[in-house]
Amino acid sequence: MNILVVYAHPEPKSFNRALLDRSLEVLREEGHAVVVSDLYAMGFNPVASAEDFLQRRFPEALQYDREQKFAHEHQAFAADIQAELDKLQACDLLILQFPLWWFSVPAIMKGWFDRVFVNGVVYGKGRRFDTGGLKGRRALVCTSTACLPGMVEADGLLAHLDLNLWHLLHGTLAYAGFEVLRPHASWSIHYTTPQARADYIDAYTQRLRGIAQEEPMPVHRLDEFGADWRLKPGIEPRTTAHRRPAPTTE
Amino acid sequence: MNILVVYAHPEPKSFNRALLDRSLEVLREEGHAVVVSDLYAMGFNPVASAEDFLQRRFPEALQYDREQKFAHEHQAFAADIQAELDKLQACDLLILQFPLWWFSVPAIMKGWFDRVFVNGVVYGKGRRFDTGGLKGRRALVCTSTACLPGMVEADGLLAHLDLNLWHLLHGTLAYAGFEVLRPHASWSIHYTTPQARADYIDAYTQRLRGIAQEEPMPVHRLDEFGADWRLKPGIEPRTTAHRRPAPTTE
Repeated sequence: MNILVVYAHPEPKSFNRALLDRSLEVLREEGHAVVVSDLYAMGFNPVASAEDFLQRRFPEALQYDREQKFAHEHQAFAADIQAELDKLQACDLLILQFPLWWFSVPAIMKGWFDRVFVNGVVYGKGRRFDTGGLKGRRALVCTSTACLPGMVEADGLLAHLDLNLWHLLHGTLAYAGFEVLRPHASWSIHYTTPQARADYIDAYTQRLRGIAQEEPMPVHRLDEFGADWRLKPGIEPRTTAHRRPAPTTE
Repeated sequence: MNILVVYAHPEPKSFNRALLDRSLEVLREEGHAVVVSDLYAMGFNPVASAEDFLQRRFPEALQYDREQKFAHEHQAFAADIQAELDKLQACDLLILQFPLWWFSVPAIMKGWFDRVFVNGVVYGKGRRFDTGGLKGRRALVCTSTACLPGMVEADGLLAHLDLNLWHLLHGTLAYAGFEVLRPHASWSIHYTTPQARADYIDAYTQRLRGIAQEEPMPVHRLDEFGADWRLKPGIEPRTTAHRRPAPTTE
């Protein structure tokens, strides 16, 4: 496979860096071609702005997503966006590796989505989920957290990890067409022993060796929704997220 | 009330800017003292790094959250962080206004959380939820989205809006101790009429006039969880999020 690893951590001596380095060795041993976007090392700019476009369709006022579509049609993306977009389109597997900050990705990685997951390529013109622009590819989230596993079970302090990551797993990756694998977590990193960290690294690399055989998370097809964008009568929800009311209305 | 509005939009001629401007007029008419952090206008830096600390406890390798705690104890935050932290601590109501990008905040606002919601003040030493560092304050999320309302119902294309925002409403704001109000959304902004936009602005300002009387979302108290961080036997889940299994395991 062609694998793109997008990595966001500010410290080269971190656990995350050790995990990245070992994972790259293993993926290459397995015969994959691996490209890394190390966002901190690249000084990646995460702030979407008018400067992202070399030509504009609506120069009088910025409509960011509409300019993305126009820029795609006119090869008018800023060079750093086009470079990341080329890597993204060339991959069979996208791995996102980051420390979990406020139950999401660090800002530098959020900006990678804001600027690189562009309208006209990744989504738009009806492209999403099973018609998403990146369909046929797989995605894996690999994160580290100060949480303990019980905190992110269904009845845990934070509710389930997959719920905390729903905006990323479903709203971003599945939306874009990826087959999304179960998120991988390393726990309570600051306060573990060196042996525990080595075990975390072993567990991750072991998982990576079998990654091509994993089953992705269930996602509804577009044709299971009606004109009102809700599941058609008789369609059984495939995810618990599509079954339940809002957390704030009970 | 003292109100802090944190605002993230790159375009001064946008609907969001018009919504912000009108909301500020109304809040001031109602007698509130309002401070605005306009992150794009400020050129706010969203990228957490070692430069955020004027002194370091662990200079050999960056442990970002542990340095936050040390910086708080030694008044060693970079000036832009301290300025935002002062505004945050002075507010009774925090309003976050932003366009919904990939089912979360724009990167420039994500970095505001990464850098300003600091260990030692907002959380840490057991501070979270009903013991959170910002308890006694309220928070309101005001967003605009290309989605239509049916898409973010429980059985909608994306599942419920509150689920997509769970990392923000619960994992960030409630975790920090805020009483979190129902998120406010304006829909399909690019493709609405001027009258529909005017109606959205009226609906929001009408809501703001009654904001002090609203009921916040239900959140579990810390003492409802056991030593394993899971709800104690017999505690009824207050949110549907604490009741359901993972979306990827069904």
